[in-house]
Amino acid sequence: MNTPRTASLAVPNYGFLRRLFLLLLLFVFSLGLRAQVITSPDKNLTLTFKLDDNGAPVYQLSYKKKPVIKTSRLGLETKDAGSFMEDFTVVDTKQTSVDDTWNPVWGEQKTIRNNYNELLVTLAQEEPNDRLMRVRFRLFNDGLGFRYEFPKQENLKYFIVKEENTEFNLTGNHKIFWIPGDYDTNEYAYTTSKISEIPQLIEKATHDVHAQQPIKTSLAVQTPSMMKSDDGLYINIHEAALVNYPAMQLNVDEKNFKMSAHLTPDAVGNKGYLQTDAHTPWRTVVVSDKATDILASKLILNLNEPTAYEDVSWIKPIKYIGVWWEYFVAGKSTWAYGTETNVKLGDDFNKLTPSGRHGATTENVKKYIDFAAENGFDAVLVEGWNVGWEDWFGNWKEEVFDFVTPYPDFNVKELQRYAAEKGVKVMMHHETSGSATNYERRLDEAFQFMKDNGYNAVKTGYVGKIIPRGEHHDGQSMVNHYIHVAKEAADYQIMVNSHEAVRPTGLHRTYPNWLAQESARGTEFESMGGLAPDHTTILPFTRMMGGPMDYTPGIFQTDLSYYGTGSNQRVNTTLVKQLAYYVTMYSPLQMAADMPENYKRFPDAFQFIKDVAVDWDETHILEAEPGDYVTIARKAKNKNEWYVGGVSDENPRTATINFDYLPKGKNYIATIYADGKDASYDKNPQSYTVRKVLVNSKSQLKQRLASSGGVAISVKEGTKEEMKGLKKI
Amino acid sequence: MNTPRTASLAVPNYGFLRRLFLLLLLFVFSLGLRAQVITSPDKNLTLTFKLDDNGAPVYQLSYKKKPVIKTSRLGLETKDAGSFMEDFTVVDTKQTSVDDTWNPVWGEQKTIRNNYNELLVTLAQEEPNDRLMRVRFRLFNDGLGFRYEFPKQENLKYFIVKEENTEFNLTGNHKIFWIPGDYDTNEYAYTTSKISEIPQLIEKATHDVHAQQPIKTSLAVQTPSMMKSDDGLYINIHEAALVNYPAMQLNVDEKNFKMSAHLTPDAVGNKGYLQTDAHTPWRTVVVSDKATDILASKLILNLNEPTAYEDVSWIKPIKYIGVWWEYFVAGKSTWAYGTETNVKLGDDFNKLTPSGRHGATTENVKKYIDFAAENGFDAVLVEGWNVGWEDWFGNWKEEVFDFVTPYPDFNVKELQRYAAEKGVKVMMHHETSGSATNYERRLDEAFQFMKDNGYNAVKTGYVGKIIPRGEHHDGQSMVNHYIHVAKEAADYQIMVNSHEAVRPTGLHRTYPNWLAQESARGTEFESMGGLAPDHTTILPFTRMMGGPMDYTPGIFQTDLSYYGTGSNQRVNTTLVKQLAYYVTMYSPLQMAADMPENYKRFPDAFQFIKDVAVDWDETHILEAEPGDYVTIARKAKNKNEWYVGGVSDENPRTATINFDYLPKGKNYIATIYADGKDASYDKNPQSYTVRKVLVNSKSQLKQRLASSGGVAISVKEGTKEEMKGLKKI
Repeated sequence: MNTPRTASLAVPNYGFLRRLFLLLLLFVFSLGLRAQVITSPDKNLTLTFKLDDNGAPVYQLSYKKKPVIKTSRLGLETKDAGSFMEDFTVVDTKQTSVDDTWNPVWGEQKTIRNNYNELLVTLAQEEPNDRLMRVRFRLFNDGLGFRYEFPKQENLKYFIVKEENTEFNLTGNHKIFWIPGDYDTNEYAYTTSKISEIPQLIEKATHDVHAQQPIKTSLAVQTPSMMKSDDGLYINIHEAALVNYPAMQLNVDEKNFKMSAHLTPDAVGNKGYLQTDAHTPWRTVVVSDKATDILASKLILNLNEPTAYEDVSWIKPIKYIGVWWEYFVAGKSTWAYGTETNVKLGDDFNKLTPSGRHGATTENVKKYIDFAAENGFDAVLVEGWNVGWEDWFGNWKEEVFDFVTPYPDFNVKELQRYAAEKGVKVMMHHETSGSATNYERRLDEAFQFMKDNGYNAVKTGYVGKIIPRGEHHDGQSMVNHYIHVAKEAADYQIMVNSHEAVRPTGLHRTYPNWLAQESARGTEFESMGGLAPDHTTILPFTRMMGGPMDYTPGIFQTDLSYYGTGSNQRVNTTLVKQLAYYVTMYSPLQMAADMPENYKRFPDAFQFIKDVAVDWDETHILEAEPGDYVTIARKAKNKNEWYVGGVSDENPRTATINFDYLPKGKNYIATIYADGKDASYDKNPQSYTVRKVLVNSKSQLKQRLASSGGVAISVKEGTKEEMKGLKKI
Repeated sequence: MNTPRTASLAVPNYGFLRRLFLLLLLFVFSLGLRAQVITSPDKNLTLTFKLDDNGAPVYQLSYKKKPVIKTSRLGLETKDAGSFMEDFTVVDTKQTSVDDTWNPVWGEQKTIRNNYNELLVTLAQEEPNDRLMRVRFRLFNDGLGFRYEFPKQENLKYFIVKEENTEFNLTGNHKIFWIPGDYDTNEYAYTTSKISEIPQLIEKATHDVHAQQPIKTSLAVQTPSMMKSDDGLYINIHEAALVNYPAMQLNVDEKNFKMSAHLTPDAVGNKGYLQTDAHTPWRTVVVSDKATDILASKLILNLNEPTAYEDVSWIKPIKYIGVWWEYFVAGKSTWAYGTETNVKLGDDFNKLTPSGRHGATTENVKKYIDFAAENGFDAVLVEGWNVGWEDWFGNWKEEVFDFVTPYPDFNVKELQRYAAEKGVKVMMHHETSGSATNYERRLDEAFQFMKDNGYNAVKTGYVGKIIPRGEHHDGQSMVNHYIHVAKEAADYQIMVNSHEAVRPTGLHRTYPNWLAQESARGTEFESMGGLAPDHTTILPFTRMMGGPMDYTPGIFQTDLSYYGTGSNQRVNTTLVKQLAYYVTMYSPLQMAADMPENYKRFPDAFQFIKDVAVDWDETHILEAEPGDYVTIARKAKNKNEWYVGGVSDENPRTATINFDYLPKGKNYIATIYADGKDASYDKNPQSYTVRKVLVNSKSQLKQRLASSGGVAISVKEGTKEEMKGLKKI
């Protein structure tokens, strides 16, 4: 018979002996109603766990003696195995401490410290249930992680989650940066409000997004959920290591300021199929009285598993351009080759009527390859290369793409040869149209095709309602799908950039070839109504808490009426703010999203994009306030180069930029890309200055940022010659 | 812009011109209300099509001037594109005739005649719908097939079927052989009743079957639906070429004797996603006043597409034994290796606690290989060879099996070597536990494993609720899955025998490596309550109308108390009836399902199983009455050997067996395996005689069959020596 494999306490499985043993335990410990308390290594955070009078597990969290999470319930309900909510006794508790470091394959810093105190509580329900559940808490200096664990045991093998009822009972009517709860998309604009205002704002906040499935059964928002209390506490709720479980959203009780878990259901309404030995993802609460600490937190990464890959030498950050933005703005090209609007795999695509506007032609891609090679980019993304784009969208159609058949005017072999000659990679694009079944069916063939043709990275897409029909982008089934794709890709030494997938939870630690994700409203929306000026001051505190975003910055031509297509859209930033994104919007995969012709018009500004690193030794969050501004400095990986980026919301401001992270006693050349005096995102976005100054570790720069403006700085070593005549600040 | 690709009549797509054209058509043809009539080549059947006063398409079918299907409606409702039920005008009709022959890769006869008259009706709805639907009727001498076709057209690209409303308006209260409508299983026992009696019998008929999903929204039965009218007409309703569409069941209006299509829904309740150019499967009505004609019908095969495989030389019928029946009856062995009841892929299965009862051990399989080699069998099926059987069942678990990892006591390489040395194949077993997603994900690897290890055939299984969850065994998604598996298997030159899949519709013509299916209550149920004595006199008229069944006959030890396991179960046939099945239950894949030790006890009877062919030049249905008896003679493929099988229900009877299909003027040796005089299925099943006689084309044999008994005859050429002394009949 099975014994619980991970049990720290061997509990006999049967009948009388078991009952006697449990009674003894109760007597010895009388733990049931006594609180268990742990503190963070720096003592700032305190976590209290206890059972209430009904044997229900509850916890509290405080920061510097101020409550963060008031007494909140833990547990979950199942469909087929009753409730894990109450009638528990504590049969064991165990405290451990960990303080070590590890080095990510790539990241914001070379070394990450993993320092926490852990409390593992083993809870038992007596007969008729007669079974165990554990709660594991890890308290870091930057916050709390906890998860439920269900060890192997005689009376619990398989169960179906009806709902997880984890509560986050907040202390007041916090300010919150939120998007509405939705099972299928994260691509909403953020709303900033008080918790109590969510009900009156939710309808407007739930604006149209393709293939959306807003939560209708309760008032709910998505995680990562960023909040700020009236007394200046920053609180971020999310999850870490989302594997084999549905994504968590948060029900909102706007009267009592209480949030509770809301899992994404599957096609039949179930919320997770578990087999013991099992555990949930970690529920995370990052807390500080400094906003910069929130952005600096590595708690979510620390709660993920180390990578299982033995060889990670082939995994490299990527700076890339792509045949992409021209589809959105220039009006000159499209993904589709033919003018037909009803095609099927198996059709002879050579017989389609060419529109003459197909973007992914051999000739056009060669121009991008040339530009990439000339300017030091690693890769060129090409969307629209493969057959099926004529009617790929919105039909809940299972077999849209086959991932291996190019359009007649896209010569895979020739482009492979050409790109290799120029030292550039072509980046693959696998749009699935939401049909995971079709993609999985063809995955091996698709990846083999990539290997055979020299591709080493793929952008995946999940636009549309999911197939298997009834499943959601954020459900357990799809959560497992994305991971399956990342693992399969690793077998072929392929890196993955997934769009429209479930938002990240730090899994890039475990699967470092999963370089980045979209999972939020990115630059493409600048061509479809525009992003709010504060959008990118919120994203680092929300979506990006889970992992890197393929935000696709670098738009220089922000006024889209420029293209003469009749569009009066505009990108709601200054040109310099777009530069700053390469530092403020962390990703090991950074696109220069604008078209080559626009970069050629602004070569001095473009120099920053050419220079900026995509992997880092150190990161310093200099200033930050969600919804207002973010200023970050980073040291390039294995180089004595630093890059600083700062962004503002709609309000102009003056950033205070310190350089105390520079080695002491040495001057460096700082090239400062700044908004022009007359710059503003809406009137004069392309007004900028580029100046060089000398800086050292004692320097401080006060730099004005325009309305939705930015600042970008490169800091490099220079020869005496180069430094001559430069002013020191 | 698209023009309808297959349109026989070019209809301008737009506005005024179109309307004018339609008016002209109406005027010219005044077809709208005039009936279209075609007859079968032999004039026995008449099909009438017309539009009623509401522009609703209706049809009638008569046989020898007697109505078979009274005026019945055609059409379907969509979820997103309105109704295809009425408001039609006839814009074109076209009649064609075909009379040709084709040769199946394997089958009941070497050559099949395809002879029909066709009526293709093109119907149009005017604006606002402004679109076309076609109905294609093919009238054979043995019945009717028709389907809906939706050509490419401007106003119809994608649509979702809400329900197909095809009616079969019967002429009276027929006798019907039925199982209850169910989206997930066909493994019910048959009920024989009047149509009017179905309501009072349906509850009992819907007995427990694992993972069943009985239809609750209406009174429904499954197809193939076999009926007999009071005036002696035999009517069989089914479908042909079920591809990319859900399986059809039949709603029953027991008061008006009307049946109508009931499609299997998907996870969200939809009943088919179609993209023009599209068509439904064929709806089939096989009709005759002779029951033997029903069994002889090749209508369903004729309505399927010819095979798309270029090379079919590797596809061969198979006679096999297996490590299988001992799991059901002997109480000595099991599929699972360990005693644990909670295992996962990735566990170290070497560390399980061996039960000592694992059946698929290298040693045990070698014994089967020896027996197969000694007795001329092609293959040995081995179930339970791969890890995961400890808790494979009933947990709606996605990843139960990986299809490539053997248990520690099953040596794949050694068995491959041993079997090859003996000229025998080991047959693969892929139980999916209903998890199609897991199977598709691993399919290539699983088939590659088979190729690498010398397997050329696989038995697939779908026991349990389907994953993707919410989908059904008989829904569009799974229909496509089974075909996908068959096609992928063909890429690896692998033959497929699917169990618990949707019942067949003649697709083995198109995919001849899909040798057989289960999709009904087969021999395994003889160990779980037993099959009714008339079960196998009904199956040929129902389930087997669609294609071969892996019924797994050949049980010699029918009283299961023999094994001393405490079971009082019994197989409800005589031993000889089991022999007869090799002829009456047609399949190119025939198992000798009993254990070798039982065959060794009855070597004279076993000789018939060793001799009998599994592929045929000719088939002659000598006698048949659904629910009562079936007698069939077949000529072995490319051999001057004939095999005759006859079975009876619970009533003893005397079969009349003619030999007029033998070449004239020559005597042959007939070996007659007959029930003993005192034989009966329940008292004395193992009483039998084997005798040799001479027969020629003028011979006639009156042979008594016991209660649930049978007769089996082999007819071979003999030398003078061999014929000497044999009595001629």
